[in-house]
Amino acid sequence: MTAPARWVGPPLGPLAVIGVGQIGGSIALAARAAGAVTGIVGFGRSADSLHRAVLRGIVDRAAPSAAEAARDAAVVVLATPVRSLGALAREIAPVLRDGALVIDAGSVKAAAVRAVEAHIATFVGCHPLAGTERFGPDAAAVELFHGRICVVCPTVRTAPEVVERAEHLWRALGAIPYRMDAALHDRVLGAASHLPHVAAYALAAAVGALDAEGGPASAALRALTTTSLRDTTRVAASSPAMWGDIFLDNRTEILPLIDRLQSAVAELRAAIDAGDAARVEAFLDAARAARQKIVPG
Amino acid sequence: MTAPARWVGPPLGPLAVIGVGQIGGSIALAARAAGAVTGIVGFGRSADSLHRAVLRGIVDRAAPSAAEAARDAAVVVLATPVRSLGALAREIAPVLRDGALVIDAGSVKAAAVRAVEAHIATFVGCHPLAGTERFGPDAAAVELFHGRICVVCPTVRTAPEVVERAEHLWRALGAIPYRMDAALHDRVLGAASHLPHVAAYALAAAVGALDAEGGPASAALRALTTTSLRDTTRVAASSPAMWGDIFLDNRTEILPLIDRLQSAVAELRAAIDAGDAARVEAFLDAARAARQKIVPG
Repeated sequence: MTAPARWVGPPLGPLAVIGVGQIGGSIALAARAAGAVTGIVGFGRSADSLHRAVLRGIVDRAAPSAAEAARDAAVVVLATPVRSLGALAREIAPVLRDGALVIDAGSVKAAAVRAVEAHIATFVGCHPLAGTERFGPDAAAVELFHGRICVVCPTVRTAPEVVERAEHLWRALGAIPYRMDAALHDRVLGAASHLPHVAAYALAAAVGALDAEGGPASAALRALTTTSLRDTTRVAASSPAMWGDIFLDNRTEILPLIDRLQSAVAELRAAIDAGDAARVEAFLDAARAARQKIVPG
Repeated sequence: MTAPARWVGPPLGPLAVIGVGQIGGSIALAARAAGAVTGIVGFGRSADSLHRAVLRGIVDRAAPSAAEAARDAAVVVLATPVRSLGALAREIAPVLRDGALVIDAGSVKAAAVRAVEAHIATFVGCHPLAGTERFGPDAAAVELFHGRICVVCPTVRTAPEVVERAEHLWRALGAIPYRMDAALHDRVLGAASHLPHVAAYALAAAVGALDAEGGPASAALRALTTTSLRDTTRVAASSPAMWGDIFLDNRTEILPLIDRLQSAVAELRAAIDAGDAARVEAFLDAARAARQKIVPG
């Protein structure tokens, strides 16, 4: 993995991070480390998280509101749950410096881009494919974006110079920008990220139902941790607030994908129920081959 | 992680490994490293795998049949797919040395224990909770069992000395023996291991269906690999032959677990479809909490 390019030339100016969780916090840490910004102010709905972000030196100071945080910034990062972005954009738009670059980092793009762009012309929707199941400012890390793709979703209304400024910033954070249409992003990430989260949460709930029955099965279940259950449900440790927001915001894409998942489970179940070894193995073979194409190695 | 105890006292004698895949091969490597056996003969249905096992020094020589492999052994390891164990036991029983310890390493226990015990009184059903999605002799590793639990399933017919010999051997391989009723094992591992594999294969199949449609979504899906898809489907890279066998052998436990999974997916889907943020978040919260109890940390 190559080290991120350091920022070349004068810094962009002050950075405002609204939402100081894992992603917002990591952007702050990486932007400071790269020398891309001159100072960092933060705002978050949770006073605890904001306090932790100041204590950890992620932000230099806490602002009393999103608008106060954004007022003097050259770059504003909106890193709050996706369904809050429209209202947030409306709130900060009146106080923004002329030409200030505004980006988000949300996992769903079409609705967010529409909602923010309506208020802020210098906005570029972004989605770094980074982040873990941990959340909050304590999960922020300076290297979170190193070598990771960041999807960048300009629209026909986005000025090329604004897109380039956003991409330049992501490169300085260590990421690899990847331009993409917002609607296509939502379809593809629905499959590559949102559906795995649905499967992981549902699997955790199903196994949890057995555990909740108590008795020897429950005791043994807790004693016999398997790597398969650990890995398959890893992302079910993610933030319920954030993922609930993503599922609802991208539901037009996610619902048909969930139907595909249900059909696949039903197909495998029917083959098992029929005791049809050839049909079961053919299903598993095809699934395995499909995975190798999408997630090689 | 502590180093495995080396074998104390005279070695058990010659080891026969029938099925020289990842598990059988790893038992051979670890037994030799611990000094628990005096020599190792292997047999496998695949001439290629058997040849690789000899080339890698996993076994000292290849036998022409399972019976020939087992003939002079003090310890026989049956590491073939679970549904083959009954026929294998019938085949080797007539030639076994008196008192030879016979163990398996299969992922389903009740049916296998019944089928093998009918032919071999000195059999103990075992299931080391180890192994990865890789398979074949090239995936064998001397440290595969270090610090891992090995479920041991004696029955009322198993002589205590035989169980102790099996447990002593597993300890020498680095594993931690855990005695358990075979039927309870199958219920608990159905949830902790078999259901995660069902979910992973089905998810891979569902995402693969989108990929198979081609076009820009397919291209982007391959470009934008996410850690969530990678981890959630990791075990879908496992051997289809082995897992088809497990699903069928444990189907009485697995089918109701699949129904639980389908219900959980349906419940989450309904909440998303209704646009009910509180209901979605409550589902995710409960699933996350359930996971934390079973897979802490």
